[in-house]
Amino acid sequence: MKIWQKNTDSSKEIEQFTIGKDTEFDLLLAPYDVIGSLAHIKMLAKIDLISDEELEALSKELKALYQEIKEGKFQIQEGVEDVHSQIEFLLIGRLGDVGKKIHSGRSRNDQVLVDLKLFYRDKVKEIVESAKQLFDLLLHLAEKHKNDLMPGYTHTQLAMPSSFGLWLSSFAESMAEDMDMLYAAYQIINKNPLGSAAGYGSSFPLDRTYTTELLGFEDMHHNVINAQNSRGKTEKTLAFALSGIGSTLNRMASDICLFMNQHFGFISFPDDFTTGSSIMPHKKNPDVFELVRAKSNQLHSIPNAIILNDTNLTTGYHRDKQLLKEYIFPGIQTTLDCLNITHFMLKEIKVKENILNDETYQHLFSVEEVNRLVKSGVSFRDAYKKVGLSIENGDFKASTHLEHTHEGSIGNLCLNEISAKMVHKIKRFDFSKIEGSKEGLLG
Amino acid sequence: MKIWQKNTDSSKEIEQFTIGKDTEFDLLLAPYDVIGSLAHIKMLAKIDLISDEELEALSKELKALYQEIKEGKFQIQEGVEDVHSQIEFLLIGRLGDVGKKIHSGRSRNDQVLVDLKLFYRDKVKEIVESAKQLFDLLLHLAEKHKNDLMPGYTHTQLAMPSSFGLWLSSFAESMAEDMDMLYAAYQIINKNPLGSAAGYGSSFPLDRTYTTELLGFEDMHHNVINAQNSRGKTEKTLAFALSGIGSTLNRMASDICLFMNQHFGFISFPDDFTTGSSIMPHKKNPDVFELVRAKSNQLHSIPNAIILNDTNLTTGYHRDKQLLKEYIFPGIQTTLDCLNITHFMLKEIKVKENILNDETYQHLFSVEEVNRLVKSGVSFRDAYKKVGLSIENGDFKASTHLEHTHEGSIGNLCLNEISAKMVHKIKRFDFSKIEGSKEGLLG
Amino acid sequence: MKIWQKNTDSSKEIEQFTIGKDTEFDLLLAPYDVIGSLAHIKMLAKIDLISDEELEALSKELKALYQEIKEGKFQIQEGVEDVHSQIEFLLIGRLGDVGKKIHSGRSRNDQVLVDLKLFYRDKVKEIVESAKQLFDLLLHLAEKHKNDLMPGYTHTQLAMPSSFGLWLSSFAESMAEDMDMLYAAYQIINKNPLGSAAGYGSSFPLDRTYTTELLGFEDMHHNVINAQNSRGKTEKTLAFALSGIGSTLNRMASDICLFMNQHFGFISFPDDFTTGSSIMPHKKNPDVFELVRAKSNQLHSIPNAIILNDTNLTTGYHRDKQLLKEYIFPGIQTTLDCLNITHFMLKEIKVKENILNDETYQHLFSVEEVNRLVKSGVSFRDAYKKVGLSIENGDFKASTHLEHTHEGSIGNLCLNEISAKMVHKIKRFDFSKIEGSKEGLLG
Amino acid sequence: MKIWQKNTDSSKEIEQFTIGKDTEFDLLLAPYDVIGSLAHIKMLAKIDLISDEELEALSKELKALYQEIKEGKFQIQEGVEDVHSQIEFLLIGRLGDVGKKIHSGRSRNDQVLVDLKLFYRDKVKEIVESAKQLFDLLLHLAEKHKNDLMPGYTHTQLAMPSSFGLWLSSFAESMAEDMDMLYAAYQIINKNPLGSAAGYGSSFPLDRTYTTELLGFEDMHHNVINAQNSRGKTEKTLAFALSGIGSTLNRMASDICLFMNQHFGFISFPDDFTTGSSIMPHKKNPDVFELVRAKSNQLHSIPNAIILNDTNLTTGYHRDKQLLKEYIFPGIQTTLDCLNITHFMLKEIKVKENILNDETYQHLFSVEEVNRLVKSGVSFRDAYKKVGLSIENGDFKASTHLEHTHEGSIGNLCLNEISAKMVHKIKRFDFSKIEGSKEGLLG
Repeated sequence: MKIWQKNTDSSKEIEQFTIGKDTEFDLLLAPYDVIGSLAHIKMLAKIDLISDEELEALSKELKALYQEIKEGKFQIQEGVEDVHSQIEFLLIGRLGDVGKKIHSGRSRNDQVLVDLKLFYRDKVKEIVESAKQLFDLLLHLAEKHKNDLMPGYTHTQLAMPSSFGLWLSSFAESMAEDMDMLYAAYQIINKNPLGSAAGYGSSFPLDRTYTTELLGFEDMHHNVINAQNSRGKTEKTLAFALSGIGSTLNRMASDICLFMNQHFGFISFPDDFTTGSSIMPHKKNPDVFELVRAKSNQLHSIPNAIILNDTNLTTGYHRDKQLLKEYIFPGIQTTLDCLNITHFMLKEIKVKENILNDETYQHLFSVEEVNRLVKSGVSFRDAYKKVGLSIENGDFKASTHLEHTHEGSIGNLCLNEISAKMVHKIKRFDFSKIEGSKEGLLG
Repeated sequence: MKIWQKNTDSSKEIEQFTIGKDTEFDLLLAPYDVIGSLAHIKMLAKIDLISDEELEALSKELKALYQEIKEGKFQIQEGVEDVHSQIEFLLIGRLGDVGKKIHSGRSRNDQVLVDLKLFYRDKVKEIVESAKQLFDLLLHLAEKHKNDLMPGYTHTQLAMPSSFGLWLSSFAESMAEDMDMLYAAYQIINKNPLGSAAGYGSSFPLDRTYTTELLGFEDMHHNVINAQNSRGKTEKTLAFALSGIGSTLNRMASDICLFMNQHFGFISFPDDFTTGSSIMPHKKNPDVFELVRAKSNQLHSIPNAIILNDTNLTTGYHRDKQLLKEYIFPGIQTTLDCLNITHFMLKEIKVKENILNDETYQHLFSVEEVNRLVKSGVSFRDAYKKVGLSIENGDFKASTHLEHTHEGSIGNLCLNEISAKMVHKIKRFDFSKIEGSKEGLLG
Repeated sequence: MKIWQKNTDSSKEIEQFTIGKDTEFDLLLAPYDVIGSLAHIKMLAKIDLISDEELEALSKELKALYQEIKEGKFQIQEGVEDVHSQIEFLLIGRLGDVGKKIHSGRSRNDQVLVDLKLFYRDKVKEIVESAKQLFDLLLHLAEKHKNDLMPGYTHTQLAMPSSFGLWLSSFAESMAEDMDMLYAAYQIINKNPLGSAAGYGSSFPLDRTYTTELLGFEDMHHNVINAQNSRGKTEKTLAFALSGIGSTLNRMASDICLFMNQHFGFISFPDDFTTGSSIMPHKKNPDVFELVRAKSNQLHSIPNAIILNDTNLTTGYHRDKQLLKEYIFPGIQTTLDCLNITHFMLKEIKVKENILNDETYQHLFSVEEVNRLVKSGVSFRDAYKKVGLSIENGDFKASTHLEHTHEGSIGNLCLNEISAKMVHKIKRFDFSKIEGSKEGLLG
Repeated sequence: MKIWQKNTDSSKEIEQFTIGKDTEFDLLLAPYDVIGSLAHIKMLAKIDLISDEELEALSKELKALYQEIKEGKFQIQEGVEDVHSQIEFLLIGRLGDVGKKIHSGRSRNDQVLVDLKLFYRDKVKEIVESAKQLFDLLLHLAEKHKNDLMPGYTHTQLAMPSSFGLWLSSFAESMAEDMDMLYAAYQIINKNPLGSAAGYGSSFPLDRTYTTELLGFEDMHHNVINAQNSRGKTEKTLAFALSGIGSTLNRMASDICLFMNQHFGFISFPDDFTTGSSIMPHKKNPDVFELVRAKSNQLHSIPNAIILNDTNLTTGYHRDKQLLKEYIFPGIQTTLDCLNITHFMLKEIKVKENILNDETYQHLFSVEEVNRLVKSGVSFRDAYKKVGLSIENGDFKASTHLEHTHEGSIGNLCLNEISAKMVHKIKRFDFSKIEGSKEGLLG
């Protein structure tokens, strides 16, 4: 049964093929569909397309529906095409003809667009919160381990002295910088598409500025074609941002898997945080971080999948866009899962102490020696040659005393500056407007 | 001949394989290598690692080199590994031992990083300028054609009335919104990595705040590991932004190729702007827009190539990162080429007038008719059914009078609002600081 | 509860994160796990690691389990990690200590590998069957419409005369050629990994040639590391093959969506095969083909996702590989769905007749005119110029009589040759061996 | 100056944008354009479209041109659009009107298609030869090091005993299996498109069977639309095959980079085969293998780039296809470079001996101990538990005697079987036909 249904029945095969996984994903959109509708009817009343009584009746029923959704009582019935139809059917069932008026000046195209944007907006908020939680832990751990030295590698070769503090806070700063792209995505998300109808606007005197305000959007997509074309672009931009976070997680997880290798043995986790093998009883496998690594690659695959879905298509809605949900919805969940499990694991990380005291690492200090010579007046290139030859001759012997003082070095981690960076970047999101608009419409 | 060379010679085969296309791309970095070096030595003098006389000698020679580069007289000699080595060789050749001091407190890793960031920063500026030029033309054309109606399509099916003004300005607004991601990329680019050395900092008391200021960076990557890991991340973020612009261009080019098809015939270009066929004399092929479409897909492929290059690698420099240039450098040029050729073409676009007067298009006005009934008090769903049946019965007859008044609709394009959006978004970049820093160092 | 469990409990959070969607996908592997186990124990008995009585007891129970699986009675219990554990638990529960012997000389690594390969092998068979069904319909339709002319396009511009027969059979031949890559995938799938254990073989005197034969594999992965590394490679190769089929479907679906546009109007489907719009009553949208187009792009995204999952990892099993199922399992289903729905739709395709009689299309015949002049002795380039100028002067008038006789042209479609190609390509798969091996083990 | 030129001049900007990198890549196609033309005119003479005298004159001049190309004397002149035009201009210049007849019954579309296929065919041959050379070396090294034990890892954790022989021959077998996909690509390449003209065939009575035979193709693309659509599909399939080889190289290079890390230290190369650092004199960096790793990821990015270029486009030539060369031509060269440099490096590989004698590795033998218990009658699960607990209690002590006998295990590498596999797979290509056809046309 479909809202647009004429007098023919499409076959079961076609129905099954076209609905796809929509009913599963659409459930997540239900509360946002109600919120979008509440704003829409308030605007319809403002421009006199519905009466104040009709507004009140519709609002009351929509708020009741919102409650039912929150309580898990809402379902998309067998044979109903999508969440928008389900809600409209329920309204008509409960209110009669008044229920039919809710779709005036609206198409399912802008209806689903506004639902998606409201949903993504909430999810970005959740992601920022999870990222902040992990960020705080990383800074905390960096402070705790700022004096625990470890080797630094280039080309996977032993290179120079590093520290756990430096290593851990590198991911904190990286995550802070990931907020830039997430904020760019948020700006594209946080624009009102409502009123664009099927992508070519409407002959009703809609007040789009009013719905923009009611829904707490920062701005609107003015041009209605552009509003419609934002489907796909919004998902792609968000996917880029998630892939950015994915890179930070992937790097950290790759490091951890390597550092847990027995030849390194730099870090460890409680026994019940690693997994065993069905055939090798001594194994303590870093499955969680292997999966974080793999799942961050899943995040990396999403932008491309979205681009493939959308490229070379002409302006205007195409049914292809329905599949966007299948890429970005799981991507959002995966991001949250990875941030949260990484936080869960890192709380229990144990780092090996006094690693660099071992003979193995003395060459790490060769650059220190070069620099010492430079400070004493030798040119860099000559000092470099001297140390290089003494290493080749096997008579290199360096002091392991370290004095790194510049910004961001092992002796001066700048954790406060990094912390301030994150706070500054998060502040821009202004999530309080979201809650304000929800209260305004539902309260 | 290599700066790090010990007493052995690597073979020709290996040299050829490892150098790859670097000498080609490195030429583009030469001026930035000089600028970075100028800032570095000023800082070295400030912390007393070189004397004022040495600073002056080095500065003078570097500025002379900058001039030679600008005049096209600079080359990377056969057998010299990269631009950094070439410049250092020249300095040592001209200044003797003083030339060797320039590398104190610096590694090629942070040296190339700072070169890249300065280069990308200039290129983002160029891209913003080209985008603005195209944006302005689109708005101009939208104003000119605001009353030229055309059909709007959904599912590639005739759907509703649209206009050339609406269609053209949709890309203008899209381009304005693309600036968000470009700005996110700019923020990641515009951070100072200098002083991170090989990724683990230095025992010299470098003053990174000072070089940040001298080079006009907005901020620094504080953590030195994070600074090093920003290689790849910077390119990836920029590639995302270029792919964003690519989507806007791809949509426009796809539309144009379709609208130039003889069954549509909505737009045309002068004869010498289209190409012919070796076997079909009547063809006027939209080759330029087909190539814009294809090249925007080239932009779409770059983020993924960069991710593949970088994923699952552990912290610290890997030689893999050398290949990043092969992806992002051509991507930058392709973006500029596509923006500029699109501007070149659109200047001459001709649109067909009075398209919708044709009988073919009368069904486009069905929604208008539905809305008319709704305004007269019928519920939307009932009006919809009525019009639908009259179409099925073949007796539908609609007035072609249109009155769209809401924000962003064909009757109210909001070109001023869209223009203001672009201006606001561009202002954030603050490119003036770039020029200021160049003058400060070179002047 | 896990088979490898030591004395500690991993937390709920970790369990949930690591199990992921495995229980869902693992159900599909259950019958193959039984088949693989049947071959394994037969081999264990042959090398005297279990007695004939043990073999008989285990075989009987496994065959009973196979029956339960086929009847839908098998489930993976809450808290059981995967299908392999579930089956082993059931065996131990029913048979006691004998059940424990089944895992001798086997690791879960080669166990799941063999399950996957048996599963993929059956699925390739299904895909070939669905492809053949669609292929046959395309050839049937091509024969039926061989005289129905239509325009051919290049650059989306009207170019030359074509026919529905030519257009439809182009996809048939394309699909036949897609079998080459599917066969390459099949060859990589159809190799026995059993006996590679955890990727480094076993100290048991396993007889891998015997299990290769029992399971109807064409060959084995001899080297045990290579057998283990085939996880990921197998999925990638299959994904490539599905993407190949995807390209054929994508092209066909793109054409159909365009040809259903009202300006073309070349083909149509029954009303209940298209979908409507919630706001535009006259629309007959090609949703099914838009989704085939989009889903073929989903197929296109899978190889890249698999590559990202697998690249830059070192030899040996990594938990990352668990996620491969999430890419390839839905990809297989999507391929089958798209092939089957396309067959379902095309059965009812209606093509417009006598299209080329319309004035619009007379320039299509310009090349024919050029060729006529050439046959009469004029050089090609001169004939080309003459016709080109007569078109520019507006006095071009061509006969619409067509006489294309060469292989594969509109007058000589070579449907028999194309059909023979498909038959030849399918024959190589030799699926009969699959059924034979199942009977041998289960009968 | 263009062959299809009418009376207008397209602008410099457009010319530069549309020609792109074509002149660079087209030089590689020149010899194949001559070969394709030789076959085409022989066929034209057979169907009496040119006289025997004309055939002789054209043949003589084409063979002379082939010689000039081979001697490096051929160039595409400034302003000439592509290689096809250049050759035709030369012929007309040298032969007058006869030169114009060569294009009868041919379009640039099928002309470039046949050139590409002939070029790819030769390149596949080169790739197979390079792969075989590396394969042979791997088998040779495996035999040499079959008794040199090393640890095997799973989850990057120490797992079980392995050997250099096992490790090295795993890549040999992998490479043999890569030939399956390369052969699938070869089959799609090795089909004659000539005669498909612009994608809709020709009214000339072309004899495509004859050109198929002359050019040594295994078969033809019968359907002319399918022949045209094979552009893009051919490149994609070849790119898949190169990505397959890329995976094998990527795994090997990743292993080598890890094994050269000082904590592993399993393998080494001569000093002049590694590179140094500008700041860390003790480094011996595996740059070549890092670049092989990165370049194999470049190969991995090509299929996706090609898919993006081609997806969602309708049937018929689009100018987009011109960009395919930019992806696949460098991809072919990169594959050859990586295969050859890997061969060059591996010739000098040194492996560490007696690794497993070290205490570190005793847990590797735990599975052996489990199996020993099983062979003595204990059930696998109980043996597993017993060994696991003894490891946990710290009293595990295993014999390091190994006796792996089954197919593909460290004690039975099956190098002969692997070698036979490669020989069998290569034989299918039947490259001798290529040379035969060249001699037939040029001799």
